[in-house]
Amino acid sequence: MKEPAVLFRETLVSLLEEKKYPTLRDVLVTLNPADIAALFEELPADRLPLLFRLLPKELAAETFVEMEPDEQELLIRGFSDNELKEVIDELYLDDAVDIVEEMPANVVKRILRSADPDTRKMINEILKYPEDSAGSIMTIEYVRLRRQFTVEQAIKHIRRTGIDKETIYTCYVTDDNRRLLGFVSVKTLLLSDEEASIEDVMETNVIYVYTTEDRETVANLFHKYNFIALPVVDEEQRLVGIVTVDDALDVMQEEYTEDIEKMAAITPSGKPYLKTSVFALWKARIPWLLLLMISATFTGMIITAFEQALAAQVTLAAFIPMLMDTGGNCGSQSSATVIRGLSLDEIEFSDLLRVQWKEIRVAVLCGVTLAAASFAKLLLFDKVTLAVALVVCVTLAVTVLCAKVVGCTLPILSMKVGFDPAVMSSPFITTIVDAISLMLYFSVATAVLGL
Amino acid sequence: MKEPAVLFRETLVSLLEEKKYPTLRDVLVTLNPADIAALFEELPADRLPLLFRLLPKELAAETFVEMEPDEQELLIRGFSDNELKEVIDELYLDDAVDIVEEMPANVVKRILRSADPDTRKMINEILKYPEDSAGSIMTIEYVRLRRQFTVEQAIKHIRRTGIDKETIYTCYVTDDNRRLLGFVSVKTLLLSDEEASIEDVMETNVIYVYTTEDRETVANLFHKYNFIALPVVDEEQRLVGIVTVDDALDVMQEEYTEDIEKMAAITPSGKPYLKTSVFALWKARIPWLLLLMISATFTGMIITAFEQALAAQVTLAAFIPMLMDTGGNCGSQSSATVIRGLSLDEIEFSDLLRVQWKEIRVAVLCGVTLAAASFAKLLLFDKVTLAVALVVCVTLAVTVLCAKVVGCTLPILSMKVGFDPAVMSSPFITTIVDAISLMLYFSVATAVLGL
Repeated sequence: MKEPAVLFRETLVSLLEEKKYPTLRDVLVTLNPADIAALFEELPADRLPLLFRLLPKELAAETFVEMEPDEQELLIRGFSDNELKEVIDELYLDDAVDIVEEMPANVVKRILRSADPDTRKMINEILKYPEDSAGSIMTIEYVRLRRQFTVEQAIKHIRRTGIDKETIYTCYVTDDNRRLLGFVSVKTLLLSDEEASIEDVMETNVIYVYTTEDRETVANLFHKYNFIALPVVDEEQRLVGIVTVDDALDVMQEEYTEDIEKMAAITPSGKPYLKTSVFALWKARIPWLLLLMISATFTGMIITAFEQALAAQVTLAAFIPMLMDTGGNCGSQSSATVIRGLSLDEIEFSDLLRVQWKEIRVAVLCGVTLAAASFAKLLLFDKVTLAVALVVCVTLAVTVLCAKVVGCTLPILSMKVGFDPAVMSSPFITTIVDAISLMLYFSVATAVLGL
Repeated sequence: MKEPAVLFRETLVSLLEEKKYPTLRDVLVTLNPADIAALFEELPADRLPLLFRLLPKELAAETFVEMEPDEQELLIRGFSDNELKEVIDELYLDDAVDIVEEMPANVVKRILRSADPDTRKMINEILKYPEDSAGSIMTIEYVRLRRQFTVEQAIKHIRRTGIDKETIYTCYVTDDNRRLLGFVSVKTLLLSDEEASIEDVMETNVIYVYTTEDRETVANLFHKYNFIALPVVDEEQRLVGIVTVDDALDVMQEEYTEDIEKMAAITPSGKPYLKTSVFALWKARIPWLLLLMISATFTGMIITAFEQALAAQVTLAAFIPMLMDTGGNCGSQSSATVIRGLSLDEIEFSDLLRVQWKEIRVAVLCGVTLAAASFAKLLLFDKVTLAVALVVCVTLAVTVLCAKVVGCTLPILSMKVGFDPAVMSSPFITTIVDAISLMLYFSVATAVLGL
């Protein structure tokens, strides 16, 4: 698939250089907003206001939504109050909120001042919901039907009001107090008799979420039920907004990127890698590296404590990396599996014992296999004494067991106490397992070899 | 949010035990297919055929789709030929294909024999597309319009044919040779003048994919453009099917899980953790553990080579874990960031030098910070000699640099040669960086300390 952005880029640059603005505009309007935004980012920033003003109002607003915060801020700073108002008026409310959340305080003030009073009030309402909640990602622009409507009236209502709604395909039926009674899809409306009443064709088994629900759970519901929209209610079951499937996709991508970053001991930034400054990357990585480096001191202290034993049998040092690495890998496997299961809602706290029992059995199988392979290699290839081979293999098997139990337990416990389980992944598990494996190694060695 | 499945479970079990089947049926039909499937999985497997037969035909088929392959197979084996035919006839084609892909050969034969000849032919067509391609996840049931239609005719056409289509909300306009001309959304149709022709209201700038496109790229397009459906064409630009947003969500979830598993050195299984047997978990994990354990031998050999130096200054051993861990963590940070950037299509092969240059600068910042912190700690806390502190800190700084360069380079190279970059993550990077850091450590130590 060749993306339009790639196809058009060179032509557009030359049109821009030759100042053929009407032609440029005619070409731009054939493109998708996401492609125009990607294109604008590749062009010199000082041309951005000029290019943006070429776009018709609606397309301009749609393109604005797709831009990176840096470019949005640059444009807003260049806008007259009137231009800003025009763009804000065209935005869907949830998009406006997303933009406001990314801007510095003085830009936010200008945006809110430019919005009409109703929009300003609604933006402020949504901003009050906690970050990462259903309330913070919902839009309040949806189609609301009355149960007394006929199908024909409902379609007319959609025709009259649908132009400003983010989706018209799922319509919600409420009573006079906005309490949610049911929903009906446009597919059902189109395939039903025009005379039928909404009450008869609506689906009353509605899956909904509260405004405070975690946004990742919301995204998982879209995956489970194949929705294209999901209603959001307040604590009195009144419909306050909807989340659409495109928001669920965004949430999924963002949450997943955050998970990967946390699992690699990086503070999530929310910015694409190539757009993040070297200093910002350093800031996101260094605290964890320092913390983990200091933690590794304990492992070093274990070695120091057994320095005499090590000096007496310096061969033992050669197997330290293998023991540490294998322990770390076993622990990482378990923690990654469990972290993923937790974020898919496949594993819950009540499964703790079940998970541990499963990991113990897997650990025994893995431990025996690895120890056997290692034993053969130690005797045949490394040609160590039987006693040393025994020390290494017993340590290995017990390390695998400890690693898998620690690896599966810590993410579940950390979720229980309210921390993100993703932090309890490879780097931390490895650090803990390193200390355990060396402690085991030297204890077994001193006992067996009589050091 | 309290899910219906939880609310109803206990009632249902008692209804089942009391054999109150009509009541049971009345309760079940109020539930969502995904919830019924989840519920059925919690009940004894021998009741499954009985429960399934209580459901009305359409709901039965929708529930069937949501079940795990094990339960599906169990049901199919219990079905009469007639029952099987009824279920298959109700399925959307892409769902039927998904099921066929999971079943053993003899069950597949029965399914294909039960399907009517047209369906069988279409299932076989889709099965020919490579796994993980757009062709393998598409459905061929979409609404096709002619450009000569008026909006009114189009809506009538949808009313007549829409019942069997997976989505009616995006309709595709083709010429007589099925070549894709444009698309029109039901929203546009409803908001347009009834007399307008489809040719006038359709959007001609169509983003499409070829049947061979990678399914992860397809899912990324949904995220980029906020589509609810995406057309799939053959190499002659003829429309052969569509992918819907719910399939994109599925793909995203599956690909994420696979990525996380690969990054933790596990062979992806595609099954939920709690449903995977201990033996299957062992089989997915042990090859990588063995491979990595054997690779760690090289690190051990480096220590053996410098055994004399180590025996002369056994203090050096205490800093091995810290150097290995910090190197591993630095490498993992870079590789995780780059792997994520690659799968989001934010980083391409042509960015290699740009990425390396960025990582080198980050590595210098991180290396200097870590070395400085470490230097202070070594002198003040560990009270080692200045020479030993210098050896450790110089090694640390250079290790960080090597780790970050290796960590960002290997995933990009591995993508270039056609391997999954996710494999080049923490476990492999750590193993490689371990060897590098120990080699550096002992080389610096022998040079500075004159061992």
